[in-house]
Amino acid sequence: MATDWAVSPLAPKNGFPDLPVVKGVQFATVAAGVKYTDRTDVMLAALKPGTVIAGAFTTSKTRAAPVLDCQAKLGKNAKDGAAIIVNSGNANAFTGIKGIEAVQAITHGVASELGISETRVFSSSTGVIGEPLPHDRVSSVLSDLKAGLKDNAIDAAAEAIMTTDTYPKGSGRTVSVGDKTVTIAGIAKGSGMIAPDMATMLVYIFTDAQITFDDLQAMVARHCERTFNCITVDSDTSTSDTLLVAATGASGVDVSHEAAFETALFDVMDELAKQVVRDGEGATKFVTVAVTGAEQDADAKQVAMSIANSPLVKTAIAGEDANWGRVVMAVGKSGAAADRDRLSIRFGDVQVALNGQVAEGYDEAGATAHMKTENVTIGVDLGLGQGSATVYTCDLTAQYIAINADYRS
Amino acid sequence: MATDWAVSPLAPKNGFPDLPVVKGVQFATVAAGVKYTDRTDVMLAALKPGTVIAGAFTTSKTRAAPVLDCQAKLGKNAKDGAAIIVNSGNANAFTGIKGIEAVQAITHGVASELGISETRVFSSSTGVIGEPLPHDRVSSVLSDLKAGLKDNAIDAAAEAIMTTDTYPKGSGRTVSVGDKTVTIAGIAKGSGMIAPDMATMLVYIFTDAQITFDDLQAMVARHCERTFNCITVDSDTSTSDTLLVAATGASGVDVSHEAAFETALFDVMDELAKQVVRDGEGATKFVTVAVTGAEQDADAKQVAMSIANSPLVKTAIAGEDANWGRVVMAVGKSGAAADRDRLSIRFGDVQVALNGQVAEGYDEAGATAHMKTENVTIGVDLGLGQGSATVYTCDLTAQYIAINADYRS
Repeated sequence: MATDWAVSPLAPKNGFPDLPVVKGVQFATVAAGVKYTDRTDVMLAALKPGTVIAGAFTTSKTRAAPVLDCQAKLGKNAKDGAAIIVNSGNANAFTGIKGIEAVQAITHGVASELGISETRVFSSSTGVIGEPLPHDRVSSVLSDLKAGLKDNAIDAAAEAIMTTDTYPKGSGRTVSVGDKTVTIAGIAKGSGMIAPDMATMLVYIFTDAQITFDDLQAMVARHCERTFNCITVDSDTSTSDTLLVAATGASGVDVSHEAAFETALFDVMDELAKQVVRDGEGATKFVTVAVTGAEQDADAKQVAMSIANSPLVKTAIAGEDANWGRVVMAVGKSGAAADRDRLSIRFGDVQVALNGQVAEGYDEAGATAHMKTENVTIGVDLGLGQGSATVYTCDLTAQYIAINADYRS
Repeated sequence: MATDWAVSPLAPKNGFPDLPVVKGVQFATVAAGVKYTDRTDVMLAALKPGTVIAGAFTTSKTRAAPVLDCQAKLGKNAKDGAAIIVNSGNANAFTGIKGIEAVQAITHGVASELGISETRVFSSSTGVIGEPLPHDRVSSVLSDLKAGLKDNAIDAAAEAIMTTDTYPKGSGRTVSVGDKTVTIAGIAKGSGMIAPDMATMLVYIFTDAQITFDDLQAMVARHCERTFNCITVDSDTSTSDTLLVAATGASGVDVSHEAAFETALFDVMDELAKQVVRDGEGATKFVTVAVTGAEQDADAKQVAMSIANSPLVKTAIAGEDANWGRVVMAVGKSGAAADRDRLSIRFGDVQVALNGQVAEGYDEAGATAHMKTENVTIGVDLGLGQGSATVYTCDLTAQYIAINADYRS
């Protein structure tokens, strides 16, 4: 690994999960030396003809060339075979015409190698912004990648796409539909520059389910709102975030109206999103911010994000300090409708404040005990209506500064 | 001092300035033991009859009781004497009905002691949020404060209002109008929870100029936009920010149409705002973010604030890393109109990026040398129009985390 800090203390205790095999997709990885040495840094996923690919992307106004290219290709020529190629170490972002040329060179190379249409090759790049991508290093390993394609190698793919991640991220489900089964397996990378919408995060989910592009795209967009768009590490939004969901159809099972599939896909997206937060740079606490009683859901999310992104709230959590005054501050600054004298706050199960002032008989020792746990929950009730939202984040520690003050060097 | 960390490396080299005496105002300070021990923590400013008081306040939805009280009193009964009373150590914020009662007790006590109307007593409180203010500790020192009132004691007032500040902040000007002079002297406190609009910051400016409330209020509001609303330390907005400008009229010089006075008042506000940033918690760099070429000024400010508040930009500056990719990221996420391929970036005088890619012959050594200086300037041209804005901030260091992870303890 290029990283020299330890694995996040919030990493899943059992390591990378045993993911189900998804029929219709094969993976290969290679060490191309794009930037890192002594590790794999390119992954290729080859998808059978008929694979439907849906997606979601960063809302940044300075989107990288591969993102714009993927967006333009969504929903086209689904009867052809397809591929996803990803490199780590260089984001190919803010690289002008050279960036577009690099995307074209890579997608053209993959298309030739696999005998598919260029419009069916999706590429992502993650890493340093602003340096031209040495795309020849990727192009020169394409035949090796093709030769190495295997059914059961998604774990290696999860490792090849890591940058400052301290552990590879995966999640999977097997869904029964009648007497048949459908599998879902997804991987993700990301640990900094994480905030909606779709911050430095790459996510690839594969399923052998059969579904139309429109149905899959709608389901992905719906789930994204409550998963990847509800997490934040540092409020910074990347130029390169990409989520692709590829449905190969190889199971022959139509899931367009299967609630069990929709739930399973949500679960995979939810688990991957939380794993990204759990690898938040320097994180020592997994924080859930649950806001209720807002005038509307959008207000609740605005308040929750204001709390989750507040440096003063996040440093208090790092210090295991039940500093609820900073939660009041973050509610006040969010811009959403709020009434100081109806505001109530909980830390875990401990009622801290009620109707605009400290709760009678407030158990400060209990609140402090909750702050010392690994999973901190901040509950805020605005007392105004029925709107609610839940957002996930981590604390802000000196380790975040250490990582980010010298990431490029 | 209650603080146990050193003075900010960005503090003015010559210490607290020699401020001109303002006729018509007297100051007193005392150690009331509101929270701190062994230091002054209450200051009183007594103002002559006819003093005009203008102001600007936090936009937080959870404004503290003293802020609401001040806002209600602006522009009333100017022919009476007036007073400003400030305590540090406790913000009297989010304290429900008890908070309102505390404000009433203190302003009533000052009014009785000085023989003025309660509607002319302005109070501020700064410190911990959510704990009831022990207002009897303030009330019990009012006669001492009255007895101690002196013409030339603004420096002591600047010290009494400090919380996590590492140095007292002051700025003054003497303006010639015809053959007469007008003086302006201001003080401020604030070092964290600093962001527009009017974050944990208290500012009191005094002048012996003669001016109407409407003229002064308009001037203050106009200047505020380009001074205190253009600084940010950590994007967090306080519940308590207050700026009061008191014009005693004691010079007998009408300044309603004196450009020299308006400029001098701007200079004082600008200097105080920058001193607040220079005392940003953990700051080692003073950062100017100058955005030009936006469609409108508001877009420019949105982009400048997005850069100035980005944890990744601020940590890169702390690490003296000319990481311009993060500036691109922050432009992209701001939400303001931007075109990646027209974007240009400078660090100091070094052109880093031009029209959406790294500048030809980019002098990385020169950019890095600039990052090693104490005053870092990030220039961004959006290439779209004539809108511009300049925002001031500081870097984000491990010391910020250390200060804020244990502020209450």
